[in-house]
Amino acid sequence: MIGGLGATLGAMQALGMTGGLIGEAHGQDIATLTPTLGKGVHVVVLGAGIAGLVSAYELEQAGFHVTLLEARDRVGGRAWTVRDGDKIEMIGEATQTAKFSDGIYFNAGPARIPSFHQGLIGYAKKFGVPLEVEVNSSRSAYVMAENGSKIRMRTAINDMRGHIAELLAKAINQGSLDQAMTAADKQKLMPFLKAYGDLDEKGAFIGTERSGFGAAPGAGVTFSSAASAVPMDQLLANERLPMTLFEDNLYMQATMFEPVGGMDRIHAGFDRNLRRPAIRGAEVTKIRHTARGVEVVYRDKGSDVVETIAADYIICTIPFPVLAKIDTDFSPALKKTIAGVVYDHSNKVAFESPRFWEREQIYGGISFVGGPTTLIWYPSAGLHSARGMLLGCYSSGPNAAEFAKRPIAEQIAFSRGVIDRLHPGHGVDLVNGLAVNWHKVPYSLGPWPDWNTGSANGRQEGHIDTPEFRLLQKPDGRVYFASAALSQTPGWQEGGIQSAQGQVMALARRVAAQASVEGSRRAA
Amino acid sequence: MIGGLGATLGAMQALGMTGGLIGEAHGQDIATLTPTLGKGVHVVVLGAGIAGLVSAYELEQAGFHVTLLEARDRVGGRAWTVRDGDKIEMIGEATQTAKFSDGIYFNAGPARIPSFHQGLIGYAKKFGVPLEVEVNSSRSAYVMAENGSKIRMRTAINDMRGHIAELLAKAINQGSLDQAMTAADKQKLMPFLKAYGDLDEKGAFIGTERSGFGAAPGAGVTFSSAASAVPMDQLLANERLPMTLFEDNLYMQATMFEPVGGMDRIHAGFDRNLRRPAIRGAEVTKIRHTARGVEVVYRDKGSDVVETIAADYIICTIPFPVLAKIDTDFSPALKKTIAGVVYDHSNKVAFESPRFWEREQIYGGISFVGGPTTLIWYPSAGLHSARGMLLGCYSSGPNAAEFAKRPIAEQIAFSRGVIDRLHPGHGVDLVNGLAVNWHKVPYSLGPWPDWNTGSANGRQEGHIDTPEFRLLQKPDGRVYFASAALSQTPGWQEGGIQSAQGQVMALARRVAAQASVEGSRRAA
Repeated sequence: MIGGLGATLGAMQALGMTGGLIGEAHGQDIATLTPTLGKGVHVVVLGAGIAGLVSAYELEQAGFHVTLLEARDRVGGRAWTVRDGDKIEMIGEATQTAKFSDGIYFNAGPARIPSFHQGLIGYAKKFGVPLEVEVNSSRSAYVMAENGSKIRMRTAINDMRGHIAELLAKAINQGSLDQAMTAADKQKLMPFLKAYGDLDEKGAFIGTERSGFGAAPGAGVTFSSAASAVPMDQLLANERLPMTLFEDNLYMQATMFEPVGGMDRIHAGFDRNLRRPAIRGAEVTKIRHTARGVEVVYRDKGSDVVETIAADYIICTIPFPVLAKIDTDFSPALKKTIAGVVYDHSNKVAFESPRFWEREQIYGGISFVGGPTTLIWYPSAGLHSARGMLLGCYSSGPNAAEFAKRPIAEQIAFSRGVIDRLHPGHGVDLVNGLAVNWHKVPYSLGPWPDWNTGSANGRQEGHIDTPEFRLLQKPDGRVYFASAALSQTPGWQEGGIQSAQGQVMALARRVAAQASVEGSRRAA
Repeated sequence: MIGGLGATLGAMQALGMTGGLIGEAHGQDIATLTPTLGKGVHVVVLGAGIAGLVSAYELEQAGFHVTLLEARDRVGGRAWTVRDGDKIEMIGEATQTAKFSDGIYFNAGPARIPSFHQGLIGYAKKFGVPLEVEVNSSRSAYVMAENGSKIRMRTAINDMRGHIAELLAKAINQGSLDQAMTAADKQKLMPFLKAYGDLDEKGAFIGTERSGFGAAPGAGVTFSSAASAVPMDQLLANERLPMTLFEDNLYMQATMFEPVGGMDRIHAGFDRNLRRPAIRGAEVTKIRHTARGVEVVYRDKGSDVVETIAADYIICTIPFPVLAKIDTDFSPALKKTIAGVVYDHSNKVAFESPRFWEREQIYGGISFVGGPTTLIWYPSAGLHSARGMLLGCYSSGPNAAEFAKRPIAEQIAFSRGVIDRLHPGHGVDLVNGLAVNWHKVPYSLGPWPDWNTGSANGRQEGHIDTPEFRLLQKPDGRVYFASAALSQTPGWQEGGIQSAQGQVMALARRVAAQASVEGSRRAA
């Protein structure tokens, strides 16, 4: 047993040695836990989002007895796939009921998986959940300026590159950069720049077929020509021009993955593979340490019966704004920290529609529109079929907080208006609009922490390594905390997986040490 | 009837007006032919590649009586999907027999469809052939230098962009480009350049997370860092660096399409939808004009029986090197032209293998290796499954001509060696290697014309608008020629579709004019 754990610890220490691959090691170390480690030990896992599901699954694999409690009537947490007939209940809003045609669904939470999230991909493979390509960037999609003018992504990318290459070639030819680079570099860079920008023989950028055709190629004597170049000032005038770099973000690559049929298929895979599947409708009301372990009190929402479970440990994955309202005996410092975690806002608006965008040769990908709705995200599922789910809004931050104050019908109408602005005449094609404001969703109350708001003193954006963050990483007595919120990537399921695996490892280490002490006592 | 055709001609004239979309119009004009136009007219179509299939299908839709002759025992021509048990027969080579596991296949010819090839996509939709995403670019794939050193595509792209942005920012800050741009442009360009290259506050490029992580992000206090920058001279030293621009080629975009199960599914769709499917094993030996029409003589390869078909017209899609050897009564000028069309070379080498590349987080896309094999192309079909088809070579031009002179076993061994060089230790994983040299494939004798070799006098590369090319666009008496070879994109099926639709339209115009004359006569 210790051998297995020791091997694991070794593997964990080796994490730093995996530079060549992106994020691979995190998903693998936990596999070395022995299957009898947790024998006789009962763990209650609170919340069946990705962190809770991973915790429960890995604990069961390591021989623990696990009770998984989930307040909702479904597993997955934020990984919420809305299908025809599903209800969207939000605090302070009338219930929306999804009305979708066959095969159409709406991933209201996470909707894409980057290839380096090998933890999540690994579980999908393990549970036989098929993944398909999510086309996250289409060069046929648009960047739309404030004034409503639009440029195809391919034009914005390639014409801007042409202008940049031309300017740099000019500077080099003038000798302006002779101090900054060697003659040898210069000699190699110049032909590359010509290829880079598709410059002409004189080093000028006059347009490129990469941005599209002026005349399309054909048969016979129909010959193609390159589109003429969009002037640089016109490109730079488009406030969304930097979104041409979106696909270079490691998390937002041009091709990603999605589970066939909806994100929650992975979570259903976990649940199917638990010896004791999640108990639904179990709303936790109280958490206590006892002389011998812990006690969790929950209300069964169906029957209103209150149950108490005694166990040895808890792994708590409940979002902090929800946890802050639960009666616990955590340390005052921890309680204060939990109460102080401010969550961000995030909204999505979805429509069903005939695929008018495919007639504009947009297959998947995103158009960037700015404003309160940020983007229009085209579906990768069911390419070339008749109808699809069009996402008309996905935003977070202060923009999203403001937008969510509008009535639901107005949010939907606004999003429809933006879509109609980018795709004139197609606003009327959009039916069955739905809006989700995550901070109003019961048992979530927000998408992820906004650490910058929560922790004052002008900390640098994205800098989450605060005393509060560190405190939440540690158990309070026998209660461990796991959540994407406790990872560096709180908006990604992989963060929840990494956190859960880390907390399971910490608990396993403690149980192993305990067993070792007890073993010594018995031997003495 | 005339109304329908008139509408078509109008649509054809309107072709020039479709600048916004890429290549859309070509696939649509033919839809306006009336279904009774060809009543009583018999057309023999020679060859059931894409051009022949489109010709036969569209002629049948327009009411013609069509006989489609195909020398092979399959339709599709170059769109050849090799599956387990299939035989690869090449002139001068021993027959290779494909041995593949379940679900694995090899598209020996075309293997990807760009989104603007709406003609082909339209037929796939019409015939209910499902298309899936072909991932044509993976940022995890490599560019490999001559010396064997390799750089991930994402590093090469983003680090090079960082250096370029830094250099240009430097030149602008020095005032070197004050003559070339306005102060306003300068003011807008500088922040964009910072985003473009992911430069630091001082405008320096010191590395970017876009190129990968130094340390990967994790849960708890495991924080990520950006990979450090690869110096520019090191990037420029990689001879394959320009291949980072491959995905910006309109024909080679990051996401493309492929028919689920193999390219030939589209061609099977055509054949299923013909009233008179292709007659297989019919080797054309003679083409003649007669007093009343045309005659085609063919040998049925199964029985060795020779048949003669009398018809009104012929659409001939037979590749020119094959046609040159057939006994015809074409004009001397045309015969000479056909005999003078030199075809290019093209080779592919394929293996079955466990998906070791997916453990390197490569899902689809292409690594560029240079040399005689050019590339390593990873499969998009069956992502995350156990085994797949790895393409170890796809090359054309003089390089390919040389490579094809080697014995087949040596071609396969060489390709294995290159794969092992890029993916050390995995050469042994590769099994069931197959090599196809297209100029040795009977009834093809090459992949597409090399017009530059064929037409002398130092014509510019890619310039195919020659007198010979123009002559082949015209019918010889009652024989029309349709082929991707007669389009601007001879390596793409869309070119074959455009050519076929154009020739069907030309024939339709003639038949309609004829009918009109006869109608007048009857009325007189």
